[in-house]
Amino acid sequence: MVVAKKYIVVNPFEGEPKKSDFMIVEENLPELQEDEFLAEAAYMSIDPYQRMKLGNKYPCDMIGGQVAKIIASRNSEYPEGTWVMGHFGWRTHTISKPENEKFCMQKPFLYKLPDFEDLPVSLALGVCGRVGNTAYFGFTQICQPKPGETVVVSGAAGAVGSHVGQIAKILGCRVIGFAGSDEKCKWLTNKLGFDCTANYKTTDLAQFLKENAPNGVDCYFDNVGGEISSTVLSQMNQYGRVAVCGAISSYNETDPAKRKATILQPFIVSKQLKIEGFLVNRYADRTIEGVNQNLKWVKEGKLQYREHITDGFETAVDAFIGLFRGENTGKTLVKVK
Amino acid sequence: MVVAKKYIVVNPFEGEPKKSDFMIVEENLPELQEDEFLAEAAYMSIDPYQRMKLGNKYPCDMIGGQVAKIIASRNSEYPEGTWVMGHFGWRTHTISKPENEKFCMQKPFLYKLPDFEDLPVSLALGVCGRVGNTAYFGFTQICQPKPGETVVVSGAAGAVGSHVGQIAKILGCRVIGFAGSDEKCKWLTNKLGFDCTANYKTTDLAQFLKENAPNGVDCYFDNVGGEISSTVLSQMNQYGRVAVCGAISSYNETDPAKRKATILQPFIVSKQLKIEGFLVNRYADRTIEGVNQNLKWVKEGKLQYREHITDGFETAVDAFIGLFRGENTGKTLVKVK
Repeated sequence: MVVAKKYIVVNPFEGEPKKSDFMIVEENLPELQEDEFLAEAAYMSIDPYQRMKLGNKYPCDMIGGQVAKIIASRNSEYPEGTWVMGHFGWRTHTISKPENEKFCMQKPFLYKLPDFEDLPVSLALGVCGRVGNTAYFGFTQICQPKPGETVVVSGAAGAVGSHVGQIAKILGCRVIGFAGSDEKCKWLTNKLGFDCTANYKTTDLAQFLKENAPNGVDCYFDNVGGEISSTVLSQMNQYGRVAVCGAISSYNETDPAKRKATILQPFIVSKQLKIEGFLVNRYADRTIEGVNQNLKWVKEGKLQYREHITDGFETAVDAFIGLFRGENTGKTLVKVK
Repeated sequence: MVVAKKYIVVNPFEGEPKKSDFMIVEENLPELQEDEFLAEAAYMSIDPYQRMKLGNKYPCDMIGGQVAKIIASRNSEYPEGTWVMGHFGWRTHTISKPENEKFCMQKPFLYKLPDFEDLPVSLALGVCGRVGNTAYFGFTQICQPKPGETVVVSGAAGAVGSHVGQIAKILGCRVIGFAGSDEKCKWLTNKLGFDCTANYKTTDLAQFLKENAPNGVDCYFDNVGGEISSTVLSQMNQYGRVAVCGAISSYNETDPAKRKATILQPFIVSKQLKIEGFLVNRYADRTIEGVNQNLKWVKEGKLQYREHITDGFETAVDAFIGLFRGENTGKTLVKVK
């Protein structure tokens, strides 16, 4: 009999997630039924959205994607030895019946990885997975960037932000990144080729944009929301496009007064801006297209990434909390096995 | 020699426009040159945007559209007796050379009216003019409403808002209007067929929407911006569409602290909203299409309108100030002759 370990969340998060919000429990897995397989987690993905998307009943299982290897199977489509990406949650072992799980909130719930050749499978949770597709589809489909345009990325040192900036460079744009430390900013300019960056904690961003985007901003990829975004929107050009991918500045903010920022509508009207929010689910049908495009850019050396990997199933909560404290640079993962 | 009277603005507006910001001056008009015509204003349009769009040099002429009759002409395309809509500003008589004025900020700068038959030409500044086109194109092109959907309109008793609500009814939507007095709300429900309305000054709009839009809001036509809009966005459905037409709540607000509202990004992401600002200029090439569609609906009795007309060139400033105090219901006009 296989014993799985899994995280449960014992009460709704209030403010920043706490260690006491979680418990690890063991679960005895039954025998495989027809069409089922047993998968063993290799890496778990730790993402901000996991803070927002829990159900109404507690305790409940923690959600999240993982890369896993099928170690036993009664499903000929998913034979033993296959690598999969599945939204199995924070757990070590999972029995899955693929056809039952296709209506999950996180689409696609499950897919087989293409051949990563020499590259590590952890990339399937980052630059060549959901995160990479978030960057690729969100930026290209919603921002519709053109060569020569000026692009601003907030949360630029995060997994999605750093990826978007590099795609923007590949596509011939001028790229400005906002991040939360000087070290992150240096990484973006020195290693990833951002044209310029600012530490939003120590910089007057309005003044910075006047100097560094004198012709205005055409595209804004927004990971943070709040006052930073109001500042960027105030300096956009006619028909500017804004892809809203996240609002991490507000996820843990429980004080309603601090959930206010300079209103956007005057800029939206006068500059005829188009602002669109998206979840990568929307592009679920094109998942493999995005994975392969990003895989190609990685192999060509055009797309660099940084993984923030902690070792051991038990490190997940610390990694999760660290995410909201800005301790990560690049994609946050937990190595399970 | 013809003597024109015109308004000049002597200094930039601060807060609410004041009488002392304006002066009436006389201007001696020269003889007509080839290709020029002389137009005499019949009605002047008074609009919120006129508060925002002034130049950098003062004193300067006041801007605005008017319906005028050509009373002398040396341009065969525009013979004497022709009715035109022109952005000539707040003035009684204008010499115009059409070809010189086609690059004006307000497009189209000038066009000949179609035949209004028995209807008053004042409609060319409202329901069958720029205002009507703002409603028609902004709502149909940006909100993309479908029959059965729930539509919220803010500033619903204004010229654009009341028009949008009626188009939404014509197209088979459920329509909720927010306005600034009980009297305006009654007019919207009793005369214009809005499904329900709320006085935003006395109503908890979040609670009101929970009760009156229990299935959520699909389209929002936003004339006001600010906290009202944050409330509406918080109750929108997946893939909701927002047309941002104005932000009148903020135009006169000089205190930065009061220019803040609950941030929108969390709703934009989780509901994948699309928010787009527009100026009717964008649809300048389709001006006559919009005018004729609205004219048809008016003739069929499907589209009601209310004009707020004050009599005499000298009433313009009071009419303008009244606009920002919510004293108007429907399109604000000044009858010049």
